[in-house]
Amino acid sequence: MVLGRRFILKNHFSGSPKPEDFDLVEEELPPLGNKEIQFKTLFLSVDPYMRPYTARMTPPFTMIGGNVAIVEESTHPDFPKGCVIVTSTGWVERGVVSPEKMNKAAPGGNLGGVRRAPNLGPLSNSLLLGVCGMPGNTAFFGLTEICRPVKGETVVVSGAAGAVGSLVGQIAKIKGCTVIGFAGTDDKCEWLKELGFDHVFNYKKSGISESLATAAPNGVDCYFDNVGGEMSAAVITHMNLYGRVGVCGAISHYNEVGGYSKVTDILPLTIGKQLCVEGFLAGRWAGERWGEGIQAMAGWVLKGDIKPRETVLEGFEKMPQALMGLFTGDNTGKMIVKV
Amino acid sequence: MVLGRRFILKNHFSGSPKPEDFDLVEEELPPLGNKEIQFKTLFLSVDPYMRPYTARMTPPFTMIGGNVAIVEESTHPDFPKGCVIVTSTGWVERGVVSPEKMNKAAPGGNLGGVRRAPNLGPLSNSLLLGVCGMPGNTAFFGLTEICRPVKGETVVVSGAAGAVGSLVGQIAKIKGCTVIGFAGTDDKCEWLKELGFDHVFNYKKSGISESLATAAPNGVDCYFDNVGGEMSAAVITHMNLYGRVGVCGAISHYNEVGGYSKVTDILPLTIGKQLCVEGFLAGRWAGERWGEGIQAMAGWVLKGDIKPRETVLEGFEKMPQALMGLFTGDNTGKMIVKV
Repeated sequence: MVLGRRFILKNHFSGSPKPEDFDLVEEELPPLGNKEIQFKTLFLSVDPYMRPYTARMTPPFTMIGGNVAIVEESTHPDFPKGCVIVTSTGWVERGVVSPEKMNKAAPGGNLGGVRRAPNLGPLSNSLLLGVCGMPGNTAFFGLTEICRPVKGETVVVSGAAGAVGSLVGQIAKIKGCTVIGFAGTDDKCEWLKELGFDHVFNYKKSGISESLATAAPNGVDCYFDNVGGEMSAAVITHMNLYGRVGVCGAISHYNEVGGYSKVTDILPLTIGKQLCVEGFLAGRWAGERWGEGIQAMAGWVLKGDIKPRETVLEGFEKMPQALMGLFTGDNTGKMIVKV
Repeated sequence: MVLGRRFILKNHFSGSPKPEDFDLVEEELPPLGNKEIQFKTLFLSVDPYMRPYTARMTPPFTMIGGNVAIVEESTHPDFPKGCVIVTSTGWVERGVVSPEKMNKAAPGGNLGGVRRAPNLGPLSNSLLLGVCGMPGNTAFFGLTEICRPVKGETVVVSGAAGAVGSLVGQIAKIKGCTVIGFAGTDDKCEWLKELGFDHVFNYKKSGISESLATAAPNGVDCYFDNVGGEMSAAVITHMNLYGRVGVCGAISHYNEVGGYSKVTDILPLTIGKQLCVEGFLAGRWAGERWGEGIQAMAGWVLKGDIKPRETVLEGFEKMPQALMGLFTGDNTGKMIVKV
């Protein structure tokens, strides 16, 4: 008899995620059917999108998310015992899945499916959930395809010390841009400066407009937004003609109760400067292009041009705490739980 | 001695434009210098953009705007006595200008310069300020290049009974789209239905979301926005994957005092559906492409596919009243003052 554990989300979050929103259940795993695998999770991803995404689902359900796992038992020839997989089984420590069914539900097999982990050489497999995974491709494609920075332009990143933001700034530096980041602690700001960001501000201490008046006297060309709200409206007022805003996240709103709070309307701000504000999800580049992003990011990491950073909590039972920590800024770089 | 009259804007508007914001001055015109013209205005354009645009200028100045005029005296071979011109002298009944200097200040000569009126055949020259002028090209290029509707898609227009909105809806019908308009009186709604709009709602009587739930059960693909504010946030919540929002105007905000009021943040709304929200000004297509739009619009008018409508006030001294009327919805279609 093999036991597995998983977290059930019992109800929709109201305000911040809380421990009591979850049930940690232990259960006997079924015997393997045809072309199935039993996996043991090694690393679990914790991401801000989980908060708004679950609001569109109907609890109770196994909490969603990506993970890296090792195959413990297998009746599937493509996923033999001992191989490492990247998948999205949700918050499951040990479980049984059918790769066939999961890949059918997630065409392209890049997000939500089950795939063999690419060989990252000397790098940790946890990076498959960060710089060489969904957050890495979010940064890579969001910056290069939505913000489209040109060498010499000025790029602003909000949530700059997060999993995505910290990569965006480093890619923008590789592209020859001036990079300005906003983060929420002095330690985070210090780290971002070490990474090569040209200007970093603690938004809890410095006004956005005042910061940009000094750091971007010629205006902002690209804004990669992870935060939303008044911070974003303030950045947008500093943008240049034909500026591009990539809207990746809006973490300032995710825990609000009773609908998103009201902020300065950005619509009138887009007209005079003819700004393009575009929301996107990484899944847009799932399929053929997914590997292109992963390869580019892994190459930069191996060359030392991009320095990934993780905040790692140990123990499967830490998952709720890790998620809560995203909204209080506990993480620097990618939040990971090591099982 | 020749006398001319013009309106001076004495101070920035505060809230709604008021008669006392203007001085109507009469003055003796200077004798013509080399390559100058004396013109008499026939029609003056009155447009919402005048309200936010003047906020970025330093009063006092001759109030800005486009006009159609006839040349009364000339020392310029390209603009002989008796020819009709399209220009942007501002709110001037009779004056003297140098086409050379004006065209130098407005490269391309399409907006802000002086150009000979194209021959509209049987159509009124006042249309050069509407369907065959800046508002027409705003509708034409804003819809076709920013909203990019595809046959069969659903297009929503706010401020649908205005100079631009009423043309946008008619172009979208020509392109084979389902068109939904929002306007502010039952009479305007009735007229838009006569024009071929599929669904029209009086936003003062019908909720935006409720209206779209019935009129756009499969969602909205394109939103041409002249209004901004909560109306726009509501439309945006109904948009489909990869929907396009063309932000042309934000008339709901223009008369606000002390900064734009706070509304539901649209940034989080752009992410899940990967919406593209783009502000634009018609001047973007000044230059080579300007004539393409004018020709297309004139062709549709001559064929009867587009029915332009004007609200015409008579008398130069009516200019302030006409401008104020834009913000109280006095106009159906293009607001014009006939001198």
